[in-house]
Amino acid sequence: MFNMIEFIEKKRDKGRHGRDEFNELIAKLMAGEAPDYQLSAWLMAAFLNGLDSDETMYFTEALAKSGESYSFPADLHIVDKHSTGGVGDKTTLVLLPLAAACGASVSKLSGPGLGFTGGTVDKLESIPGMRMHLEPDEFLAQVRRIGCAISGHSKQLAPAEGRFYKLRDVTGTVPSTELITASIVSKKLAGGAFGYVFDVKCGSGAFMKDREAAAALAENLVKVSKKLGKGAVVAITDMEQPLGEWVGNASEVFEAVEVLSGRGPADTRKLCVTLCGLMLAVASVVKDAQEGVKIAERALDDGSALKKFAEIITAQGGAPEVVRHPLEILPRARKSFLIKSSKRGYLAKLDALSVGEALRALGGGRMKLDDKIDHAVSVHLMKKVGDAVSVGDTVIELLYNDDTKLAEAMKYLTDCWSVSEKAERRELILDYVF
Amino acid sequence: MFNMIEFIEKKRDKGRHGRDEFNELIAKLMAGEAPDYQLSAWLMAAFLNGLDSDETMYFTEALAKSGESYSFPADLHIVDKHSTGGVGDKTTLVLLPLAAACGASVSKLSGPGLGFTGGTVDKLESIPGMRMHLEPDEFLAQVRRIGCAISGHSKQLAPAEGRFYKLRDVTGTVPSTELITASIVSKKLAGGAFGYVFDVKCGSGAFMKDREAAAALAENLVKVSKKLGKGAVVAITDMEQPLGEWVGNASEVFEAVEVLSGRGPADTRKLCVTLCGLMLAVASVVKDAQEGVKIAERALDDGSALKKFAEIITAQGGAPEVVRHPLEILPRARKSFLIKSSKRGYLAKLDALSVGEALRALGGGRMKLDDKIDHAVSVHLMKKVGDAVSVGDTVIELLYNDDTKLAEAMKYLTDCWSVSEKAERRELILDYVF
Repeated sequence: MFNMIEFIEKKRDKGRHGRDEFNELIAKLMAGEAPDYQLSAWLMAAFLNGLDSDETMYFTEALAKSGESYSFPADLHIVDKHSTGGVGDKTTLVLLPLAAACGASVSKLSGPGLGFTGGTVDKLESIPGMRMHLEPDEFLAQVRRIGCAISGHSKQLAPAEGRFYKLRDVTGTVPSTELITASIVSKKLAGGAFGYVFDVKCGSGAFMKDREAAAALAENLVKVSKKLGKGAVVAITDMEQPLGEWVGNASEVFEAVEVLSGRGPADTRKLCVTLCGLMLAVASVVKDAQEGVKIAERALDDGSALKKFAEIITAQGGAPEVVRHPLEILPRARKSFLIKSSKRGYLAKLDALSVGEALRALGGGRMKLDDKIDHAVSVHLMKKVGDAVSVGDTVIELLYNDDTKLAEAMKYLTDCWSVSEKAERRELILDYVF
Repeated sequence: MFNMIEFIEKKRDKGRHGRDEFNELIAKLMAGEAPDYQLSAWLMAAFLNGLDSDETMYFTEALAKSGESYSFPADLHIVDKHSTGGVGDKTTLVLLPLAAACGASVSKLSGPGLGFTGGTVDKLESIPGMRMHLEPDEFLAQVRRIGCAISGHSKQLAPAEGRFYKLRDVTGTVPSTELITASIVSKKLAGGAFGYVFDVKCGSGAFMKDREAAAALAENLVKVSKKLGKGAVVAITDMEQPLGEWVGNASEVFEAVEVLSGRGPADTRKLCVTLCGLMLAVASVVKDAQEGVKIAERALDDGSALKKFAEIITAQGGAPEVVRHPLEILPRARKSFLIKSSKRGYLAKLDALSVGEALRALGGGRMKLDDKIDHAVSVHLMKKVGDAVSVGDTVIELLYNDDTKLAEAMKYLTDCWSVSEKAERRELILDYVF
């Protein structure tokens, strides 16, 4: 008989849990017989005493099996991509159609944005008419028909994970490599893909602030995914400055359309083709990631990825004209405020966390899950680290609707950037783990 | 502003809490703004990362201040005695009148028994008419008038401690030296005594199973009490075998009357005079414990302690004739079952935990706080470790009311004692910490 107190005591005393124990824990939880105060005592014990990779795998598996699971025929080459969250990270918007245009299939379930990071669901909702909550049947049919679909998380998938997620948030047990791994991979597992590409962000605008923590998470993600029989690769990428030129829901769709049209900021394009190369390799569409990158570049430049984006939008009820005339279709804030440089030199710093907080202050992000967001506001980064700056140049443009919120946002933007005499660019892709 | 998540994170990351933090924590808890799941995450972090003696003192103090406190004039020499709980431990029944007869005043608040250990309140309730829940005013007046009173814990004293106590029980955070110390001392502190004597039981029938754990708790109790300005001394005493000859509520009152009459088992008498000596020293009634022991022995032998016991019983509504004719007044189970030895030699083992569990199985103890108990059942230990045993001698006599319960109790008593060829007595008092 599973005993909750003995389960807690085992981890408290540095014991190791077996597969059956996790299955019984989750069964008890789903039956409403695992009170929060016991789960949170166990979470703290697991945080402090750790879970080994077998335990993390068992926990992941048990979470994934707590509700419904999707499954797909093997010939679909289903691949899933997950980012740990950053500022200006619109890669999913590009990767979904891009990977599908290159012959992979992408089944993407995404959560809403919270805190300083944006969510893919919020961004796509900037497109008029776009439905982001598909029923399981409709979702699966769309993946089969056009090679990809994106939807907000279904509450039927890995429901036990949601319970732990909420508890961790209020009990100081979020930044645990093993618990994060179980949280991420359990949802991927229930989503039914055959392989995963993880983008672990590292830096001020990410949950992992340093290389060490990012590398530990990356290794855990790969190890646990492989133990579960899934192909997996991680790119550790820079989030000390935001990705690309635009931060804000509608404006990030604009930037994605730019990249899908063969234009757009160099860093966003580079990260998208890199991750797409990995996705195609994991999905066994190409023999290696190098080949995948070439195919991805071609699909951006020949318009096939953009065409696939229009297909997805049409399938999900949105206005496909957004891919031709994004500025006419997407909402855009009415007022503009320019932050200019009084110094000459090169941009030395552009703090991602501050930019993310500024967007939230403008109304473009949320603190609580039921906060409403303003899709039209945006932080436009006109200089990136390493760019030359002259006196009077605009470094940041704010697109906003509300003066009080502008003042609030400015608190974050006064010290978040600096100009120095030396030109020094940041590395975008820091490492791979596979 | 106190932030609960930051408070948890601090202990998670091995930080040290200050006095203000604990005060704010308890204020939040008393305002109903500290959910169980956050308290239990903190409890596990405190369990695993520890509290230093300053933190334990601050926590203790904050718990003590969470409700009402008793206070007494200094000339009353108020002293409190606490046992960590054992099997057959009736010392409080003797010490209360004994210390008062010797010139100290004793203000004793006691909890109900739970699990394999009995509670003083339950034992005294065997005396017909005895009221064990006195109102604060009545309690204080009785201490002033006759030098002692005993009552079940008031919910108004240290109410925050009760919240943590219940949570620890279900979250695997009971056996932490620091949390136990805070729990014990906070209630003493609210009780208003000027000095404390602790009896830390050690062995199978105690919460502290080994000497190391008992010594750590003893040192913590003394250190924290002294930091709070209280005199404190600990005796670490054996609980590998039960104390005395009788285990069971009414029968322990009988044994206490025997000891108070200058008779009774040697071990019970010895522990009582030893603890009384310490109490008189802590209360500054005598110059040292040796002198206190002599005075205590005299008070047992000259009848003055027994007379004080009758005074207490009368004051609290009970039948004082119990001190002259205990067997006529106290309830006694109808049936008797004898466990006899088929070997000759010396009793080598008499496991206290098993005896405690057997009493509970007979109906004399409780598993849950609202279980009803049978005061009349008893385990009579006719041999103690080191006693000579002949073939056919009764080792244990069970006094019981219900055949099914007898069978249940017998499960515990088959392997709990043994006879060997060598006579070896156990040390009763293992160590002092002051």
